[in-house]
Amino acid sequence: MPPQYAPSLRSRLAPLLLFLQTGFIIIFAFYTEIERNGNADDFSKRYPEFQDVNVIVILGFGFLGTFLVRHGFSGSGFNLLVAAMATQWALILNGVESLYYRGRLRIDLKSLIVAEMCTASALISIGAVLGKTNPVHLILIGLLEVSGFILNKWLLQFLLNTRPLISIMMLHIFGSLFGLMLTGTLYRKGSEQRFEKEKFDTKMGLFSMLGTVVLWMFWPSFNSVLVDDRTPGRKLEAVCSTYLALAVSAVTAAAMSVLSNPKGKLHLIHLQSCILAGGVAVGVSMSAVRHPWEAMIIGFAAAIISSIGFQYLKIHMLLAFQCHDTCAILSSHALPGLLGWIAHLVLQIKDSDDHTVAIRFAVFHICSLLITIALSVTLGILTGTVCLNLYSSSRYSQCAVFFISFISLFEGLLIRLKFWRPPQYKNCFDDQAFWEVCSHLL
Amino acid sequence: MPPQYAPSLRSRLAPLLLFLQTGFIIIFAFYTEIERNGNADDFSKRYPEFQDVNVIVILGFGFLGTFLVRHGFSGSGFNLLVAAMATQWALILNGVESLYYRGRLRIDLKSLIVAEMCTASALISIGAVLGKTNPVHLILIGLLEVSGFILNKWLLQFLLNTRPLISIMMLHIFGSLFGLMLTGTLYRKGSEQRFEKEKFDTKMGLFSMLGTVVLWMFWPSFNSVLVDDRTPGRKLEAVCSTYLALAVSAVTAAAMSVLSNPKGKLHLIHLQSCILAGGVAVGVSMSAVRHPWEAMIIGFAAAIISSIGFQYLKIHMLLAFQCHDTCAILSSHALPGLLGWIAHLVLQIKDSDDHTVAIRFAVFHICSLLITIALSVTLGILTGTVCLNLYSSSRYSQCAVFFISFISLFEGLLIRLKFWRPPQYKNCFDDQAFWEVCSHLL
Amino acid sequence: MPPQYAPSLRSRLAPLLLFLQTGFIIIFAFYTEIERNGNADDFSKRYPEFQDVNVIVILGFGFLGTFLVRHGFSGSGFNLLVAAMATQWALILNGVESLYYRGRLRIDLKSLIVAEMCTASALISIGAVLGKTNPVHLILIGLLEVSGFILNKWLLQFLLNTRPLISIMMLHIFGSLFGLMLTGTLYRKGSEQRFEKEKFDTKMGLFSMLGTVVLWMFWPSFNSVLVDDRTPGRKLEAVCSTYLALAVSAVTAAAMSVLSNPKGKLHLIHLQSCILAGGVAVGVSMSAVRHPWEAMIIGFAAAIISSIGFQYLKIHMLLAFQCHDTCAILSSHALPGLLGWIAHLVLQIKDSDDHTVAIRFAVFHICSLLITIALSVTLGILTGTVCLNLYSSSRYSQCAVFFISFISLFEGLLIRLKFWRPPQYKNCFDDQAFWEVCSHLL
Repeated sequence: MPPQYAPSLRSRLAPLLLFLQTGFIIIFAFYTEIERNGNADDFSKRYPEFQDVNVIVILGFGFLGTFLVRHGFSGSGFNLLVAAMATQWALILNGVESLYYRGRLRIDLKSLIVAEMCTASALISIGAVLGKTNPVHLILIGLLEVSGFILNKWLLQFLLNTRPLISIMMLHIFGSLFGLMLTGTLYRKGSEQRFEKEKFDTKMGLFSMLGTVVLWMFWPSFNSVLVDDRTPGRKLEAVCSTYLALAVSAVTAAAMSVLSNPKGKLHLIHLQSCILAGGVAVGVSMSAVRHPWEAMIIGFAAAIISSIGFQYLKIHMLLAFQCHDTCAILSSHALPGLLGWIAHLVLQIKDSDDHTVAIRFAVFHICSLLITIALSVTLGILTGTVCLNLYSSSRYSQCAVFFISFISLFEGLLIRLKFWRPPQYKNCFDDQAFWEVCSHLL
Repeated sequence: MPPQYAPSLRSRLAPLLLFLQTGFIIIFAFYTEIERNGNADDFSKRYPEFQDVNVIVILGFGFLGTFLVRHGFSGSGFNLLVAAMATQWALILNGVESLYYRGRLRIDLKSLIVAEMCTASALISIGAVLGKTNPVHLILIGLLEVSGFILNKWLLQFLLNTRPLISIMMLHIFGSLFGLMLTGTLYRKGSEQRFEKEKFDTKMGLFSMLGTVVLWMFWPSFNSVLVDDRTPGRKLEAVCSTYLALAVSAVTAAAMSVLSNPKGKLHLIHLQSCILAGGVAVGVSMSAVRHPWEAMIIGFAAAIISSIGFQYLKIHMLLAFQCHDTCAILSSHALPGLLGWIAHLVLQIKDSDDHTVAIRFAVFHICSLLITIALSVTLGILTGTVCLNLYSSSRYSQCAVFFISFISLFEGLLIRLKFWRPPQYKNCFDDQAFWEVCSHLL
Repeated sequence: MPPQYAPSLRSRLAPLLLFLQTGFIIIFAFYTEIERNGNADDFSKRYPEFQDVNVIVILGFGFLGTFLVRHGFSGSGFNLLVAAMATQWALILNGVESLYYRGRLRIDLKSLIVAEMCTASALISIGAVLGKTNPVHLILIGLLEVSGFILNKWLLQFLLNTRPLISIMMLHIFGSLFGLMLTGTLYRKGSEQRFEKEKFDTKMGLFSMLGTVVLWMFWPSFNSVLVDDRTPGRKLEAVCSTYLALAVSAVTAAAMSVLSNPKGKLHLIHLQSCILAGGVAVGVSMSAVRHPWEAMIIGFAAAIISSIGFQYLKIHMLLAFQCHDTCAILSSHALPGLLGWIAHLVLQIKDSDDHTVAIRFAVFHICSLLITIALSVTLGILTGTVCLNLYSSSRYSQCAVFFISFISLFEGLLIRLKFWRPPQYKNCFDDQAFWEVCSHLL
């Protein structure tokens, strides 16, 4: 029996999707072209890399989010939906610069890869609110997050001259802080209690194990794809470092899971959320990692910090700050990301002979973190406030002002149409609110 | 408890498989050789493409068919079995020409890829009868479909001079029409009623989501693998167009699913069968698609048509024509395929400056569709009639004549041995008829 | 409710993992470096191959082991854990030679691939004892097996001048004999009875089908990855041969499964364990296989032998030798491996014109098998005896002597700390002993 008062998606999700999709098609029709001058060798080198990133974004993130007993369809389905929207949007936003200079927005495998990585940052954010928001929110949050992330990338590149490799790898920090602020702002009374359906079982645990294992296997591609292959050996370094860091992480996360569990057992979800910490941390510090052991130590530390975050900080965040974090993005992305940032700083300073250069680097590096944190926190709170106001249908004007000043065109419209309504408390983490479940086919 | 009267497979499936397999080995022993003169660069370019197609055929199609609650083993297991047989058969048939001219049937990665694509068309056909036929049928249907498809490919290439890219991409239209005619002919009283076990649940939905997502991710490879890489940028164009069409399809299919569902909810199986429509349509029209927005519009239209097909035509086909279509291949392959064919026509005419050329193209293009439809419909009905006659054990002579004139050698034998018997009505869509389910291991 | 007396992992698994991991990091810090002089082309050729092997080891073997109803977390989780440890250890051991000559242990994609293949042999061994041992054992067994396998590889290479391709492909024979001896030695009263939880169901069958299908798809990469690509066409030969052998195997295994089942039904686990037999056999005989039909006949014979092994030998081994083989590694790796070895011998002798050369080859070939069998059996029994003695906490000195003479440093320590304890009989094949199952998240 479907839950009462399930919010009908028909009047909101469908028009939103069709409207946005038509808009994207129009933009693509007038402003994009495919880069035709690439050579075939380049294509055959890059295409497997593109597929690996695609697998990470669609299969990896999608199945990672299926661990809740009654939330598997939403976990994988909404992930695909948000990814399909956000990638198109990221392609457009990333090409604005080339649109300005060359009149056309060029699409090639590189731009697809970068767009998918921007999408990854949105998917991380969404991990924090998964199961507590309706898909209309998820789509809009995804698009806003991608816009914010690309804004951040521009700021870093123009203000601080940061290389794309470094600014894009900030996606873990940006995405997770954005998500945490969002879920913190969207807090509703009662969520410090246990949700009835926020649990996992054997089968769903294995589906999310599939996602985790896919991420674990293809993470070396995710970290190495943007590394310049003109310097011989740099890509290999990135792949080997990431692989070793992931192996160390997996081992350390298992040890930490056993140590921190009251019964001395392994906890699958704990393992899944900490096993990738090493890959995340090494990704953020990639440009400074030169030796495998550096990557391994980073992986070791990342798994420990991530485990502590999962076991103690997650519940603390909930009780102290009412910040309920469904997929534990604090421990799986924010903490390892910050650790990677610190590792980058330390390694770079250690390796540079010249004090002036080192200090200059440190200043730029710290600024880039501050900008990322400031932007992600601000935008996360903003997006959350907007959602919250739309929930309670009040303070319209205030939020509209905030919002319109950010990305105004379609948002203003949406607000007025009252597209927003949250799922009931008891329907959280339940596919039944949005999906036909277990029905006959005809 | 196993169902009563479960058709024993021992006396039929095993001899058929061993007989055919021995035959294939003998043919391979006398007539094939591996192409040894290819260079290593070519190999390393093509091998990832081959793997992607392999993943689509085995993992993608296999798990796509696991959505029915009690039919997962059959969905994935019989798919693998049919694929393993059909690919060997397609390798042989595709090589007949080179056998004639050079005395040897050459095997290389290209021929494996083409064979797997022919297999894909058989797997599409089988989707229509899945759960209602026994594996002996499935194997034979698979081999006949592949023979028919390759015959169609030859006719198009010799009569109309169609390029392989276009004639092979007809696989969607050929496979689905063949399957629909087959299931229509095989109609049995009662199938317009609801089958007891034709339903999905949370876990099975996720298994088939896995298959869908795998198809969605690797579809750009499926569409681009036959594109000539000597013209720079053509492969990239194919990949980007397919990717964008798939993204648009996914979004549009979600919108349509919500719009057409009475409760305004998403329907996972609807989504799964419409999400790939864009990729199918762009595949069929690949040689004429030059701009991403064309692909996106094709993807948009394909998802809409496919959704309408799934929601309204599928039940209509069942009630009006008694044509029960298990995997909804009408909406997921036939309609998008036809749309792609129309798009190809329109785009090609729009792009050509010369009227004579345009008309010439149109005539050839229409002829190629007519041949494909005629052949697939005829062969589908023929195969269905044969099966039906074998079911009711009557009109032997008539069907034997039909059949023997088509592919006579082993068929004539089979017919006489009465290898055929359909599963009971109540055992449809039930693994128990053919598989050991949930048993102890020893 | 958790089972009583579940062995707590906290005091044993965590320190072991942290201790070993720290040790590995220290070794990597002092003795390894990344090979920086490779060119970019080489990297982009080799990287997809590396990923395929990675997918086989992590996703393939991991999900293959998830077929038992209540043992899915252990099947996939412990596989990942052992793989992460064993690959690091194999990287170190494989590099000892280059460490000796060049003072540094070079890491590149090739060394990662070889290390993963050594890991694969450990994962095969573990298949025999899965569900009956605790993870502390599994880790140590994995490391010991890898050490033994690499020792075997050295012996073959130095004593008999065997090429790496052949000595590494012995992994199937070595791994499975090691595992069988291990499980035979670890025999406990009662295991000839049926274990309560040693059964599969629909959902778990599909998870392990996923693993099987992944192995089936990527096995051509596994067999061809070490083939030298300087001779044009050799890699292509390896890929095509393996692919055809796998296709034949799949068909034959299905026929045999139907034939040997008392009800004439297909048995999914039977299918899964015999479907890869052709790939295994062709892998072992790879250097002598020149024509596709040879590979197909090997695949045919391998599937038949493997099926007979699964159906009759597995239960015979249990009743006659008290050797309980969880994942049926006897039939899926040992028998096809031996068949491949014989096929190699026969083909090579058939192809050689010179008698002297043929006899010389035969002697070397037989010696290499004898060494492999002798070493794997001895080490398997040794490892098993050690475990057994540790179980019963007796005969310490004797086993310590055995052990310390083999790989003494940390083992001696471990033994004294009494880290070992087996799971209760009734807890075999139950995730609950080691994992948090189905719990709420917070």
